Amino acid sequence: MSTLLQAVEVCGIIAFACSGFIEARRKEMDLVGVFIVAFITAFGGGTLRDMLLDRRPLFWVEHQEYAILVFVLALVAWPFFSHLRSAAAEKTIVVADAFGLGLFSAVGTSMALEAGMPIFICAMMGVTTGVFGGVLRDVLCNEIPMVFRRGQLYATCSFVGCWVYLGLELLKVSSAVALIASVAVTSLMRLLSVRLNLRLPG
Amino acid sequence: MSTLLQAVEVCGIIAFACSGFIEARRKEMDLVGVFIVAFITAFGGGTLRDMLLDRRPLFWVEHQEYAILVFVLALVAWPFFSHLRSAAAEKTIVVADAFGLGLFSAVGTSMALEAGMPIFICAMMGVTTGVFGGVLRDVLCNEIPMVFRRGQLYATCSFVGCWVYLGLELLKVSSAVALIASVAVTSLMRLLSVRLNLRLPG
Amino acid sequence: MSTLLQAVEVCGIIAFACSGFIEARRKEMDLVGVFIVAFITAFGGGTLRDMLLDRRPLFWVEHQEYAILVFVLALVAWPFFSHLRSAAAEKTIVVADAFGLGLFSAVGTSMALEAGMPIFICAMMGVTTGVFGGVLRDVLCNEIPMVFRRGQLYATCSFVGCWVYLGLELLKVSSAVALIASVAVTSLMRLLSVRLNLRLPG
Repeated sequence: MSTLLQAVEVCGIIAFACSGFIEARRKEMDLVGVFIVAFITAFGGGTLRDMLLDRRPLFWVEHQEYAILVFVLALVAWPFFSHLRSAAAEKTIVVADAFGLGLFSAVGTSMALEAGMPIFICAMMGVTTGVFGGVLRDVLCNEIPMVFRRGQLYATCSFVGCWVYLGLELLKVSSAVALIASVAVTSLMRLLSVRLNLRLPG
Repeated sequence: MSTLLQAVEVCGIIAFACSGFIEARRKEMDLVGVFIVAFITAFGGGTLRDMLLDRRPLFWVEHQEYAILVFVLALVAWPFFSHLRSAAAEKTIVVADAFGLGLFSAVGTSMALEAGMPIFICAMMGVTTGVFGGVLRDVLCNEIPMVFRRGQLYATCSFVGCWVYLGLELLKVSSAVALIASVAVTSLMRLLSVRLNLRLPG
Repeated sequence: MSTLLQAVEVCGIIAFACSGFIEARRKEMDLVGVFIVAFITAFGGGTLRDMLLDRRPLFWVEHQEYAILVFVLALVAWPFFSHLRSAAAEKTIVVADAFGLGLFSAVGTSMALEAGMPIFICAMMGVTTGVFGGVLRDVLCNEIPMVFRRGQLYATCSFVGCWVYLGLELLKVSSAVALIASVAVTSLMRLLSVRLNLRLPG
């Protein structure tokens, strides 16, 4: 199980790092800027979660290979993303971001549950882990964070996905199934909401 | 005493949450946006204080009823605040914010003192607890934080209120009196400074 | 050695606080605004480092004299900086910031190494400590953070300086020499890059 959790985390890191590369390249940042944005996008949500839960050492401090992975990806990815056209870049960012959102929301909820947090707090931790990296990326790149853009669901998808995980755990379903179902629900709901322009009443 | 401290904290949470609801509604955010802004406004200052002081678990992680309270308030408040006219909304935010500022500054100072911090640091912690939630609210809603708006006192009120608390504690006055005096001084000074357009020389 | 480290830290605090005074005065902030900006610039990077490394109490919580020093400096400095002309102010900020960057990068790397972090993480901590205070200053003063301005090296200088420190430590050179060499490399490289308009390919 803990291997699956780690695999999901690495996938989330890669998905968010990619969204960071592309966004930073669109803003014509140099290599170091691209690395910093990707790093903060990939590790921002998990770092805030670990600080709120008081889990130390932080997951990326313990595993320096995660940080090195993003550094190497930045070196490799950096020459490529400069030629993406704007529409294609936007689409790729939304998709990578949707998967990162799903993956990190599920991981965050699962970790908070393991740490013995009350159940409503577990859902909040899942949303925080999923949403915060993307918020920092958009703030650094001077875009309105997706979570605050009108006419789409974002935090809501993460919130629903977290409760799917918590519900399945309460029903004693295997954790692996709960994790995969939660990731699927969050990511698909997010992509559908962009596609269909779903929104909450406001 | 600790019951009084908790009561003051709950009042501060409600005051700041209200200022968050109204600000977010003015920006036409949807239900989730309103909840997130209210949540971050209400818990931002206290969370930073607890992380700086290394108090764990965080107060809202320990008491999930606080988080649920803000969630329920958001559900209830959300249909109402959309019809507030702009001037009335602005006024309500300033008043709610002034009380939140006073309540949280006093709580923050008191907690830092209990944690055995040096006295100047206690005052800084009070200011941080009082000011930071409102700063995050204004940043999220794309307003200039009140603390940086010209022509008004803000952090200064909190700073004075914190020293009122510390002074009364040093004089061995009962903690309850010190708490109430500090809240009153900060909130009234803030409201007066808005009313009379008081400002420091700059 | 630990005395030298502390001396370097105090110099970094003063350098960053000065850059904060000047930037805040250019924005015509009042006394409290100037103090807050200087305080956050001077302690922002070190605070983030200590929270990431879980070092408690925080260095400025333990030593309240640091916070009082910045407070007194703000009181003293505040009448002076208002008459600086814009070009001179800009130049002074860049120079003070370059020294702060070098001093804090070296201190951060050294502390992470002492805390037994993996080596790549030590370099990341050095960069974080050096860069973050200045980022907060520029965000608070509504300027584009230097680290994201085009056409200059910033984080890169800090990154190189951190590896100079780590390299010299691995070669068993005395820590004092490593510290001074690292500060010199970072600060000079930063000043040269501004002077010569050096930049990475992007």
